[in-house]
Amino acid sequence: MATSRSRSLIEPDGGALVDLVVPETQRPSKAAEAEAMPKLKIGKVDLEWIHVLSEGWASPLRGFMRESEYLQCLHFNFLRLTNGSVVNMSLPIVLSITDADKVAVGSSPNVALIGPRHHDHSIVATLRSVEIYKHNKEERIARTWGTTAHGLPYVEEVIVPAGDWLIGGDLEVLEPIRYNDGLDRYRISPSVLRKEFERRKADAVFAFQLRNPVHNGHALLMNDTRKRLLEMGYQNPVLLLHPLGGFVKADDVPLDVRMEQHSKVLEDGVLDPKTTVLAIFPSPMHYAGPTEVQWHAKARINAGANFYIVGRDPAGMSHPVEKRDLYDPDHGKKVLCMAPGLEKLNILPFKVAAYDTSINKMAYFEPSRAKDFLFISGTKMRSFAKNRENPPDGFMCPGGWEVLVKYYENLQANEAG
Amino acid sequence: MATSRSRSLIEPDGGALVDLVVPETQRPSKAAEAEAMPKLKIGKVDLEWIHVLSEGWASPLRGFMRESEYLQCLHFNFLRLTNGSVVNMSLPIVLSITDADKVAVGSSPNVALIGPRHHDHSIVATLRSVEIYKHNKEERIARTWGTTAHGLPYVEEVIVPAGDWLIGGDLEVLEPIRYNDGLDRYRISPSVLRKEFERRKADAVFAFQLRNPVHNGHALLMNDTRKRLLEMGYQNPVLLLHPLGGFVKADDVPLDVRMEQHSKVLEDGVLDPKTTVLAIFPSPMHYAGPTEVQWHAKARINAGANFYIVGRDPAGMSHPVEKRDLYDPDHGKKVLCMAPGLEKLNILPFKVAAYDTSINKMAYFEPSRAKDFLFISGTKMRSFAKNRENPPDGFMCPGGWEVLVKYYENLQANEAG
Repeated sequence: MATSRSRSLIEPDGGALVDLVVPETQRPSKAAEAEAMPKLKIGKVDLEWIHVLSEGWASPLRGFMRESEYLQCLHFNFLRLTNGSVVNMSLPIVLSITDADKVAVGSSPNVALIGPRHHDHSIVATLRSVEIYKHNKEERIARTWGTTAHGLPYVEEVIVPAGDWLIGGDLEVLEPIRYNDGLDRYRISPSVLRKEFERRKADAVFAFQLRNPVHNGHALLMNDTRKRLLEMGYQNPVLLLHPLGGFVKADDVPLDVRMEQHSKVLEDGVLDPKTTVLAIFPSPMHYAGPTEVQWHAKARINAGANFYIVGRDPAGMSHPVEKRDLYDPDHGKKVLCMAPGLEKLNILPFKVAAYDTSINKMAYFEPSRAKDFLFISGTKMRSFAKNRENPPDGFMCPGGWEVLVKYYENLQANEAG
Repeated sequence: MATSRSRSLIEPDGGALVDLVVPETQRPSKAAEAEAMPKLKIGKVDLEWIHVLSEGWASPLRGFMRESEYLQCLHFNFLRLTNGSVVNMSLPIVLSITDADKVAVGSSPNVALIGPRHHDHSIVATLRSVEIYKHNKEERIARTWGTTAHGLPYVEEVIVPAGDWLIGGDLEVLEPIRYNDGLDRYRISPSVLRKEFERRKADAVFAFQLRNPVHNGHALLMNDTRKRLLEMGYQNPVLLLHPLGGFVKADDVPLDVRMEQHSKVLEDGVLDPKTTVLAIFPSPMHYAGPTEVQWHAKARINAGANFYIVGRDPAGMSHPVEKRDLYDPDHGKKVLCMAPGLEKLNILPFKVAAYDTSINKMAYFEPSRAKDFLFISGTKMRSFAKNRENPPDGFMCPGGWEVLVKYYENLQANEAG
């Protein structure tokens, strides 16, 4: 009687991130092979995950999860590798297919993936040695978000319309993923980021994940972090200002506007370009709080970060049905600090910054004189900009604010027109 | 800037299980101390958990979970100890309190726990250095069961009526928990079980978790396991026949009837009393499938088991709303084989046994002659017994079957009367 113990098939990356883009010389032959495979159409968000996987953000994962990885991710938030070591993996990175797709794949070990419209419906990648298994959406949602309430943006957009099967396998991407939206120069792969930090001789890299415009509270925190790292003895701490570039909910500020705003913040000198690298993190957003913040941190480790700034309610949102935060605002930080596979990352807990009316500046909140402070949420900030109201002086640099006002003006003009 | 990383406060048990029962000589002084503490009333299932904790089934856990343990349990299914090692912990072992209870506790570091009616409303235990934190029921249910559908037995019975706060702390139990239902002799603590296995000079202990009567399919499997362990070179494999004794759903066969049935199975020689230890596992049942099976296995490691038999859909049930199994029947086994902190346990996957009509016996199912086999589910078995129909010859030993028939006769007589 053999005692059975499933072993992960994931090999450690040995420090060199997996790179799933086919080398240029092999492209013609790989493309010809792909032509002969059963073909599956993929969506916009699937392509974002292919991008993420191809560059090694999820390294050592080599493709969409097979069932063994999926179950480990869902139940334990980590994967055990062939050498017994552990890597954090908190979000299922999976590809769903329909009943009809499953029939089309049949017993073929390999499939070709056809990109969405803005990729001209061409073959973007292949998935080899595939495994097809059930997509229990309810269980996936419950275990990832800790709720099954209707109205979770990623769930409604991506999971509800998805097929009832998942297909895992080894990914090969025929060409680097490009979006041709003028922002590709900011889409820097984790291995290129690592080289950039080396080139800059950074001895500490601190990452800041964001999906909102940068206000002076954020800036205070980032500048302060740098100062304190210097005090700790680091010679050259570098900031990775790393806005999320994939799927976001409809009322978030779009990526191009945010990138323009971030550039202004650097131009205006609120952040120092000499010690800041601005790049796009290509992942889609789940809004899955404590589960997702682990992914956000893990991916930045792969890009060379060794310090991670975490704030109140990271990756959180309002409960879609009840009038409360979906997550306890402290759980993200707490879970991140205990998460398996992230032991080497230095977690920098965010102090809460708010607008201090006694000095007309963003400053660290002091509970002893709470009445002096104004909390301006993302929603509040967007409503200021929408209504062409100015936020209090010192909330955001004027150049950055102008970008937001212009965006909402255009939006309203388009809606009216 | 101190980088923050929450550390578990749980010390490893160093091989000696935690024992939370106050030594007899200290009882008067501890009872007097308890009298002076704020008092909280607990329910029947809370008392079952106190029993579980007090005897070290959940060792090295020393009481109801504080938030740090709760979050690790919910997100990772394991706890990290002060020495960095990992123990499996998949079910939240928590005590809920109401807003009014919270007020009553105030800033007292310690509370006394008052038992339910059958414990004469006396103080059964104290909880020291307490921590009170929010009980987000929706998140707890979603992450534990992978669904929030209404009708999950433990949820409806225990969680829905519970308070909105959880209270963790170090447990001290004033006297060993007894139920005085004639079955206390079967409630053997894990450390006493370990001694019993030593006394019997067992070199392999294989555990069988059940909450249903034993039929000949189960027996086939247990006897076969022993035979194969002998073939593997073990001299004296001992079976721990370990029915669950805490909360079960309303239509499960009650514990006293099951214990009588199990005794008959041993009397009739279907299982060999010389190589079997029959004892009660005092835990309540969650019906939480892959999440719960880890707890079932982990607790048996604490009792000295080194082999664990796992079957189809362990701790599973039908989806409370949809017409399907709640869990993929293979996930329990797969998750158990990958679960953190259970690496040393040998998992013995269950072959499926069914009634083979060609030989009128329970036998391993052979797909090549599927039509010869009859699957008799727990529900089917109960309906046979209820309707005084005999199951096919060879399904269960006559003495064991008689116990079930009698139980349902009495039940119907009582319902009619």
